[in-house]
Amino acid sequence: MKRFMDLADFERDEVVDLLALAQRLKDHPQPDVLAGKVLGLLFLNPSLRTLASFQAAMSRLGGSSFVITPGQGTWNFELKDGGVMDGAAAEHVREAIPVLASYCDALGIRAFAAGRSLADDLGEKQFKLMSSLCDKPLVNLESAANHPCQALADWKTLDDLGVPRRGRFVLSWVNHPRALPLAVPAATVHMAAQRGMDVVVLRPAGFALPDAVMEQAGRAAAASGGSVTETSERDTALAGAHVLYAKEWGSPIHYGDGEAEAELRRGLADWCVTEPWFRTAQQDCHLMHCLPVRRNVAVADHVLDGRRSRVVAGAANRMTVQMAVLHRMLATS
Amino acid sequence: MKRFMDLADFERDEVVDLLALAQRLKDHPQPDVLAGKVLGLLFLNPSLRTLASFQAAMSRLGGSSFVITPGQGTWNFELKDGGVMDGAAAEHVREAIPVLASYCDALGIRAFAAGRSLADDLGEKQFKLMSSLCDKPLVNLESAANHPCQALADWKTLDDLGVPRRGRFVLSWVNHPRALPLAVPAATVHMAAQRGMDVVVLRPAGFALPDAVMEQAGRAAAASGGSVTETSERDTALAGAHVLYAKEWGSPIHYGDGEAEAELRRGLADWCVTEPWFRTAQQDCHLMHCLPVRRNVAVADHVLDGRRSRVVAGAANRMTVQMAVLHRMLATS
Amino acid sequence: MKRFMDLADFERDEVVDLLALAQRLKDHPQPDVLAGKVLGLLFLNPSLRTLASFQAAMSRLGGSSFVITPGQGTWNFELKDGGVMDGAAAEHVREAIPVLASYCDALGIRAFAAGRSLADDLGEKQFKLMSSLCDKPLVNLESAANHPCQALADWKTLDDLGVPRRGRFVLSWVNHPRALPLAVPAATVHMAAQRGMDVVVLRPAGFALPDAVMEQAGRAAAASGGSVTETSERDTALAGAHVLYAKEWGSPIHYGDGEAEAELRRGLADWCVTEPWFRTAQQDCHLMHCLPVRRNVAVADHVLDGRRSRVVAGAANRMTVQMAVLHRMLATS
Repeated sequence: MKRFMDLADFERDEVVDLLALAQRLKDHPQPDVLAGKVLGLLFLNPSLRTLASFQAAMSRLGGSSFVITPGQGTWNFELKDGGVMDGAAAEHVREAIPVLASYCDALGIRAFAAGRSLADDLGEKQFKLMSSLCDKPLVNLESAANHPCQALADWKTLDDLGVPRRGRFVLSWVNHPRALPLAVPAATVHMAAQRGMDVVVLRPAGFALPDAVMEQAGRAAAASGGSVTETSERDTALAGAHVLYAKEWGSPIHYGDGEAEAELRRGLADWCVTEPWFRTAQQDCHLMHCLPVRRNVAVADHVLDGRRSRVVAGAANRMTVQMAVLHRMLATS
Repeated sequence: MKRFMDLADFERDEVVDLLALAQRLKDHPQPDVLAGKVLGLLFLNPSLRTLASFQAAMSRLGGSSFVITPGQGTWNFELKDGGVMDGAAAEHVREAIPVLASYCDALGIRAFAAGRSLADDLGEKQFKLMSSLCDKPLVNLESAANHPCQALADWKTLDDLGVPRRGRFVLSWVNHPRALPLAVPAATVHMAAQRGMDVVVLRPAGFALPDAVMEQAGRAAAASGGSVTETSERDTALAGAHVLYAKEWGSPIHYGDGEAEAELRRGLADWCVTEPWFRTAQQDCHLMHCLPVRRNVAVADHVLDGRRSRVVAGAANRMTVQMAVLHRMLATS
Repeated sequence: MKRFMDLADFERDEVVDLLALAQRLKDHPQPDVLAGKVLGLLFLNPSLRTLASFQAAMSRLGGSSFVITPGQGTWNFELKDGGVMDGAAAEHVREAIPVLASYCDALGIRAFAAGRSLADDLGEKQFKLMSSLCDKPLVNLESAANHPCQALADWKTLDDLGVPRRGRFVLSWVNHPRALPLAVPAATVHMAAQRGMDVVVLRPAGFALPDAVMEQAGRAAAASGGSVTETSERDTALAGAHVLYAKEWGSPIHYGDGEAEAELRRGLADWCVTEPWFRTAQQDCHLMHCLPVRRNVAVADHVLDGRRSRVVAGAANRMTVQMAVLHRMLATS
């Protein structure tokens, strides 16, 4: 495996195989399999789980890692082409990426959406540039419109929980103080569709996911026997649901316009998950969230601390599945 | 060992055993004993020695480590319960701690005093919450009112120097531009008392350590055959002293009130250790300090650079004793 | 090897031997040779290549490393002696350096020029202090007036490219938004002279390198059979050149005076390398730069992206040569 950029790059069976490898590595550790291998981790944006779980994953396979954080110990990088670099950015990714790649056996990059042009971000303009500059195996640690490590971990969490392949998966918009990127919702709706689930996107007016995201998920559903629909009716969406996956995202129709977005969000404070949300769901409907979650803004304390929450188990799976990704990329035997 | 939170949690003999293990590991390295083990290090406050010495200690035992620093590459954490998280903190420790614990075999946490309520800080309100959220072995890298790794290193330094068990140990308040936490003075007075020393706390008016700290140290002294007293008379305190342990701390009577504290501190600039401080002490009385030390504010250059200073040797012992703590927690053989 | 501070501390043959070791380690990896060894890395200034390449180099030799970054997770350090430390710096290097040295087997330190006194910086006042405080092997990760790891990597790049020993090496000043240190130009002119090349320093009026730098390079040239000259005539400098090494540096005659320096730099925007610069050079004249490079300020896009550029290959050699330095310092067999 040379690239781990998007679950959509893999057939459903390939994802299933990768998850099986993850479970095998958990059951039967291979503590020396990546001895001498080095993973570079480049974070253009903050991280908690991704940083810790990748460093721990490399260690548990016998390898090691280094971390570069522009703006924190390293100068800022330029991503725009053709400009006169007389501003804050001291180095262009056209130099930085191939240089870092030369020091490691695989490189992971996190680069959130630029947040100006929806088309550029959905088209992964920045990440495609960075990918083209890296001649080593490359892992997407969250790009403008994708987060395949999160999606793979969530798939494993669904399997671990015994959620039926054709179970009902509700991805719901929840409240947040500001507009967040589309990476996780886009990756999540596709993942659940690719798994074969009946996926419902629940969101208030103005927060429908972009057509391109819904269409790609629809194609995955068609191939796997699932379905993808959307609604703004909470009880309808959650009727019979096995999983409520809560996530914050910014309005695509006011992309890059923070004020208009905030105006649209005003009055949506009740899009904070509470127990009554589950009244039409399966009795043991699970609550998932990729974290970080703002308590009592996106999800209420009593839900996060209650019987439905799978947020910690889901995050723990990040390390588990990433060990499989690294193994596929770097293990020679 | 599942928790290393406070030397007061251990019998004197247990501490002596731990120090013996530290010396054995120094004399006879075990470079593979923690192969495959991962230590997570979470720093909610800055660090130099703790960060470097724990990472080096894990390496020297064959393990590895990762570092998470909220505010530097990771978003800020919320520690308060029940609030609406619409401010700067993007993640609550109720999620962050168990997730980090899931990636590592032991977790170390540094969280200085909140500095608002003396009772909350002495009661370790924050650290008890974080400890309750961690199902892996946990090391206190300095909490609101404790710093057991520092105390353990200091005990070893006293042993290395041949300071008698019943020697005279003077913990003296020294000057600093602002109020510092009580963690090190509280840990130090207890450590010296538990070792069995005659402990004198020397401090100006208004800087007496809280009763709870003095009482706990008194109980340790009673059990070990030492004593704990306090005074504001320098020559009296230091008469016959084997060790002067200099430390800065904020006034407990103006806890959380920076202005009143600064007013009280005005005129205390002579609480900067100089050679005349030692006129009544043992001829070879040692100067100790946990570092960082502000030169010519807390201790004068000529003392730090002179024959009495043991500050570097003391800091070097941090790695030595922490290897023993990690070995007790994580070695399976 | 106890110190790697300056290529001028080594005979030419010793440098050649070190480069041969670098190539041997590249051809025949020794993945366990530094097992159990710990490298400490102290960055008083930002880094990309140095940080990543040293951490990767230690990993590839079986060792490990830790990173300390004052101002980022660690408080600021004081370097001035004799002062009252009541400002921003919480710890003096007189404590910090020996403490860090006690945790590691070798220490690397980056400390850029203070930028106030040219004599102090050329005399390496700060680095000599820090070196005197470190009783472990010490690597200069870039000091006020030197960058020996960069120079060693550049030498290897010249060898890899087959540039003749007596080839023509042009070090040219190029434009930058502010005055940069003299470390790389000083190290580069000496390295090329020590290699035996015909070295030309090309710079506009006011940017001549200090006499001490030129004289030391001249002595190296005399010993190795090369030469060192300087000019402000571009076509003359580049006539028959094998290599154009572009670098930014501040005017020595306005050292520490940003405004006067900026005034002098006004009108020098054409000191940005473009293809016409090469009209008198060898047909395959190489473009080198230590990175980071500001595109279209110091070097134009079409040169960096064109056939002449060796900037990535040069940076990749950082890891290669540093493995040899670490091997010399720490390998026992």
